[in-house]
Amino acid sequence: VSAITLTTDFGTSDWFVGAIKGVIHGIAPKATVIDITHAIPPGDIRAGALALMASARFFPRKTIHVAVVDPGVGGPRGAIVVQTSKAFFVGPDNGVLSWALAGEKGVAVHQLENRKYFLKQVSQTFHGRDIFAPVAAHLADGVSISRFGRKMAGFVRLDWPRPEKHPNGLVGSILHLDHFGNAITNLDESSLAHFVNKRVTVHLKGKPLCRLSEFYQQAPPGKPLALIGSSGLLEIALNGASAARKFDLKLGEPVNLRVG
Amino acid sequence: VSAITLTTDFGTSDWFVGAIKGVIHGIAPKATVIDITHAIPPGDIRAGALALMASARFFPRKTIHVAVVDPGVGGPRGAIVVQTSKAFFVGPDNGVLSWALAGEKGVAVHQLENRKYFLKQVSQTFHGRDIFAPVAAHLADGVSISRFGRKMAGFVRLDWPRPEKHPNGLVGSILHLDHFGNAITNLDESSLAHFVNKRVTVHLKGKPLCRLSEFYQQAPPGKPLALIGSSGLLEIALNGASAARKFDLKLGEPVNLRVG
Amino acid sequence: VSAITLTTDFGTSDWFVGAIKGVIHGIAPKATVIDITHAIPPGDIRAGALALMASARFFPRKTIHVAVVDPGVGGPRGAIVVQTSKAFFVGPDNGVLSWALAGEKGVAVHQLENRKYFLKQVSQTFHGRDIFAPVAAHLADGVSISRFGRKMAGFVRLDWPRPEKHPNGLVGSILHLDHFGNAITNLDESSLAHFVNKRVTVHLKGKPLCRLSEFYQQAPPGKPLALIGSSGLLEIALNGASAARKFDLKLGEPVNLRVG
Repeated sequence: VSAITLTTDFGTSDWFVGAIKGVIHGIAPKATVIDITHAIPPGDIRAGALALMASARFFPRKTIHVAVVDPGVGGPRGAIVVQTSKAFFVGPDNGVLSWALAGEKGVAVHQLENRKYFLKQVSQTFHGRDIFAPVAAHLADGVSISRFGRKMAGFVRLDWPRPEKHPNGLVGSILHLDHFGNAITNLDESSLAHFVNKRVTVHLKGKPLCRLSEFYQQAPPGKPLALIGSSGLLEIALNGASAARKFDLKLGEPVNLRVG
Repeated sequence: VSAITLTTDFGTSDWFVGAIKGVIHGIAPKATVIDITHAIPPGDIRAGALALMASARFFPRKTIHVAVVDPGVGGPRGAIVVQTSKAFFVGPDNGVLSWALAGEKGVAVHQLENRKYFLKQVSQTFHGRDIFAPVAAHLADGVSISRFGRKMAGFVRLDWPRPEKHPNGLVGSILHLDHFGNAITNLDESSLAHFVNKRVTVHLKGKPLCRLSEFYQQAPPGKPLALIGSSGLLEIALNGASAARKFDLKLGEPVNLRVG
Repeated sequence: VSAITLTTDFGTSDWFVGAIKGVIHGIAPKATVIDITHAIPPGDIRAGALALMASARFFPRKTIHVAVVDPGVGGPRGAIVVQTSKAFFVGPDNGVLSWALAGEKGVAVHQLENRKYFLKQVSQTFHGRDIFAPVAAHLADGVSISRFGRKMAGFVRLDWPRPEKHPNGLVGSILHLDHFGNAITNLDESSLAHFVNKRVTVHLKGKPLCRLSEFYQQAPPGKPLALIGSSGLLEIALNGASAARKFDLKLGEPVNLRVG
């Protein structure tokens, strides 16, 4: 039986995630359910897409990833299951699955419309519990994706915010501020390839901040550094403190890489 | 082996819930343990009762529900296990189990007094770990409820805060403010039956707020709406924002339904 | 298959703990993974050591305890696995494991250096995912500790902050402020043995606070009390409220026991 992961904006202070797990356990009692996070900011589809993208590749083959950041629940947005060569993805068709699927070729996408695989009573406000949870559990039980509904030609894709080229380097931006106050950007290893054999300086708030490091303790305590973090993305950090707090960083704020 | 659910006010920042799970795993290693929530406000028995009531019905038969909101731990309050036709409920006899049990007929209630099923050393401050966790694990292992102690005639019941009738409609109140800032009330489908074939307006802070909707996006972004939410209770929400914050809502605050 | 526990400072708002669980599930799909807590303050090795010490003894034999509070990740600090007669402990060699190991005789300590048991690509910023998770999973699968690397003579130990003797009693201090606002100190049962047959008063902020109680409701609502809490340590609490907030308590603040 496959594992089922959950990425949602439901928080953990209510009973919502518990109810989802109850539904899954009733259908697929042997499935292991693993929380990615339930702390996606309410309705923030891009934050959900990032969390799923950054974690899905650490799960074994055939894992079923459920992502429910679903501000359009009850309205006309679609609901889908996607099968890749490695895994399954279940959620609203609003882009939340799309970054995790970015590199995948030959995926099969089906609509979720067969009410046989939903809870008997489907609310108009909580498809995480009433549609996505039971569908994931039936997938874990071996139901093939064609049973859930019609094949679709594609799915909604969010644009990935690509860094922009600039005469003297690259202009990136902050995608995520993590629990440690590290600022994770859209700059990655391939962005650095742009600078082969050149010295690079990271700029923040229009001023040079630091050069590139490899691990946090390469900077003195409390001092800033920039490194390729554990998700393969450039992050700005302080050794032993919160860069987000010290520099008052915001999502979307520019981070530049410059030659020199 | 049955699943065991946990609803507590222990939070997740200390090691308390971990210790509970260690105790369960030592006795019933095959039991699946599912968190409903550990964010019940400290000592708030009614909030615990609501979370259990709203989630228990989504779990399969024979699930063992443990609820520990236990401000009287160590004192004279009782400790009980309740068996219904569907499930088991374990916790202090202070009402925290009672709303989930409200509709149940012919339940069997036993006191927890047989120390054979407790941890060897029972503290006077943490019965969640020392009594309720091992009892739940032994239940999952198939121990019958009569083994835990004497049969009781009943259990402590919390009053459900019924809406009041008013010449022009119903006076309800806010039971819970959820993670999204939605205000969940004590008004339900049967309250609406009061208004068959009549137009209804929801009143908040003494003023008309809105009519009834079916899903969040039926209101324009940032605008208020009222709908029967996923737990079967009327809730006041904003499309894409927090009603609790915008209207500065408090627990117990009146929400009225009026004809017209 | 053994259970694996996790004690970290990663928080639960990002995907970090999810990625760790994905790695474990890929290697040891039958292992039960139990969160102790992920809310250790960032880099606070002593807080991690306390959470592990207070919870590990409630888990069954052969449990694998992973503690990752690792401000030195990527730098020269070691990484170890420790086997005791009861359990396994995995983490950075920075003291985070040491309080849980304090009473143990004849432990075996091995370095984690055999890359065969790591993820293929090891980052310099997230050994929780890339080294400690896969090592724990291989342990759960039965790999013996000598396979992970060389035997070590010992491991880094944090000093336990012992209470100091004073002509008129003992000078202790606050080790931890818990979710309820209870202040857990370094004074324990053996500290009380110091006062056999004498009346004891607990002093806080240089003034007498209260005598010793046994459970929270022994004080009137809102009044302070001191008792040996569920972890065997003296704690200062209020009945039904937060002592930390009311008395503005800080970690390290003195708590004295005096005769009289």
